[in-house]
Amino acid sequence: MPETVEDLYDISIVGGGPVGLFAAFYAGLREMKTKILESLSELGGQLTVLYPEKFIYDVGGFPKIIARDLAKNLMEQGLYFKPAVHLEEQAETLDRVEIESGVVYRIGTDKGKHFTRTVLITAGIGAFAPNKLSVPSAAHFEGKGVYYLVKDKTEFRGKRLLIIGGGDTAVDWALNLKDLAKKVTLIHRREGFRAHEGSLATLMKSEVDVKVFYELKEVRGNEVVEEAVIFDNRDRNETTIPVDVVLINIGYKADIGPLREWGMELENRRIVVNPRMETNLPGVYAAGDIAQPKDSVYLNLIATGFGQATIAVNVAKNYIDPKSRIFPGHSSEMRL
Amino acid sequence: MPETVEDLYDISIVGGGPVGLFAAFYAGLREMKTKILESLSELGGQLTVLYPEKFIYDVGGFPKIIARDLAKNLMEQGLYFKPAVHLEEQAETLDRVEIESGVVYRIGTDKGKHFTRTVLITAGIGAFAPNKLSVPSAAHFEGKGVYYLVKDKTEFRGKRLLIIGGGDTAVDWALNLKDLAKKVTLIHRREGFRAHEGSLATLMKSEVDVKVFYELKEVRGNEVVEEAVIFDNRDRNETTIPVDVVLINIGYKADIGPLREWGMELENRRIVVNPRMETNLPGVYAAGDIAQPKDSVYLNLIATGFGQATIAVNVAKNYIDPKSRIFPGHSSEMRL
Repeated sequence: MPETVEDLYDISIVGGGPVGLFAAFYAGLREMKTKILESLSELGGQLTVLYPEKFIYDVGGFPKIIARDLAKNLMEQGLYFKPAVHLEEQAETLDRVEIESGVVYRIGTDKGKHFTRTVLITAGIGAFAPNKLSVPSAAHFEGKGVYYLVKDKTEFRGKRLLIIGGGDTAVDWALNLKDLAKKVTLIHRREGFRAHEGSLATLMKSEVDVKVFYELKEVRGNEVVEEAVIFDNRDRNETTIPVDVVLINIGYKADIGPLREWGMELENRRIVVNPRMETNLPGVYAAGDIAQPKDSVYLNLIATGFGQATIAVNVAKNYIDPKSRIFPGHSSEMRL
Repeated sequence: MPETVEDLYDISIVGGGPVGLFAAFYAGLREMKTKILESLSELGGQLTVLYPEKFIYDVGGFPKIIARDLAKNLMEQGLYFKPAVHLEEQAETLDRVEIESGVVYRIGTDKGKHFTRTVLITAGIGAFAPNKLSVPSAAHFEGKGVYYLVKDKTEFRGKRLLIIGGGDTAVDWALNLKDLAKKVTLIHRREGFRAHEGSLATLMKSEVDVKVFYELKEVRGNEVVEEAVIFDNRDRNETTIPVDVVLINIGYKADIGPLREWGMELENRRIVVNPRMETNLPGVYAAGDIAQPKDSVYLNLIATGFGQATIAVNVAKNYIDPKSRIFPGHSSEMRL
């Protein structure tokens, strides 16, 4: 039970990625007492963790912006009204509980309990983790030359890179890093690439050394990676190449985890919402990649998620205070 | 009939405001041959025409941006894929016509005919015009000291301003211009203001001279405005104040005009759309302020409109080419 009225929030946002941050801003604008719960150690979601160095072109108003910079802007915007922020705290349970002021939600996490009138789930693709290669020596060198994510591409300056994978992430990093690195080799276990056609065409014309039907056998070195043994999976012939870095981009697993047990209607591991972003639980909303809009199309785009966030927050405001107008007024008329 | 295949567009966007521009970008990303029709002489919509100088806080990713700058960014983004742009051309009629390659739409304007497979209406609040005061001397000095819109606030530097109105526009301009101008007087014909409460409180504490129950009787001067006669509408007592500029912000009329006759279901002078942004006419979509979402809430916010634009364009793409995926891929995976 919340011990003081300060413990009760109007809206708790599960997931501090781009959509959650924008929703937090919006909830503040609507004068809602707002809390963000984020399972990772930093805000920004995929922008920060999966592709900080990539350009994004399809967010309204930004002809072009680096993901890391967009995340920075969104943090400034999302924290403007000073929401409570709980990092490294994973939402696990959701219950309806009765307190003095009425029936509210209680979110149980690995660290405690949170009381809230409404819940907005903006958990993206859920907790995500890169797929790992089952090569023991790769595991041994993880963080010492073997990476699954690029946190700061400048670390690869002047290095010899081996990139493994055939999807967009692998191909994009090959193109993104080729001018920075001393040499880039990309291997893929089959001929067909899942990467975008345009990127692939650029890759094939580039100086990146692309080897198809090749897989990683072993990573060698003393303290750090010094060479990689790769093999042609058609004839098992092995090749040893000198490398400083092995970047493994073979997709990731995402899991919505405990949210599955919250009693919400799910479809394709996503939370079904109506056009008001309402789930089947009253006062619980979803927006962004995790929301499966009923009767509409599924687009996991940031711009789509921002639009959904405005709807979810305004509907939540009206749910808490039915006398409030749905429409908040325009920010340009406000003194922020 | 389109004489050549070049004359047929995949999508024609009616309205070159923020949502139309973002839609044009998105249509380009989906490799659609795109045309923008705009009735005004410039792109940017209300951002450019109604409040170029105002800060906007509620567009995702921008903690704060001046409307004029957002419009500039959106023009760069919207024109990236080089859509055809027709300015000062008002869409008047919509017909279904049969041409060699099938049945398409024909948009008739005051200047010609446009052939297109799909239509996206992002016409905002329609053609808008400020309400005028029926004071003959005000009409006489229009453009010579009497204004209804602020195009460039630096023109008011060091001037004595009389602002008329009690809504957000009047109050906001009073606050925005008070430090730039030599003196600002604001008159309103009644005690109740429609402006946002927070702004009003700031206004009342400011050095702006606020007079309620006052109206404009006459504007006087030789070549340009020199003084204004105002009167107390309770006792008809007149006061003459020396002013250089009279800024009249008493609302505006907006009219969706000829769109009314296009056979679309309307509600509150808006175009009814389903959650896929489809109107009742196949291949005709609406997004932004002019769209009235069925089963959802109406929010005339730029962020909401951007989200709707992504849905409308992707659904339109799928309508033209049912084999295409609804989902476009992420721009971060593309080489733009």
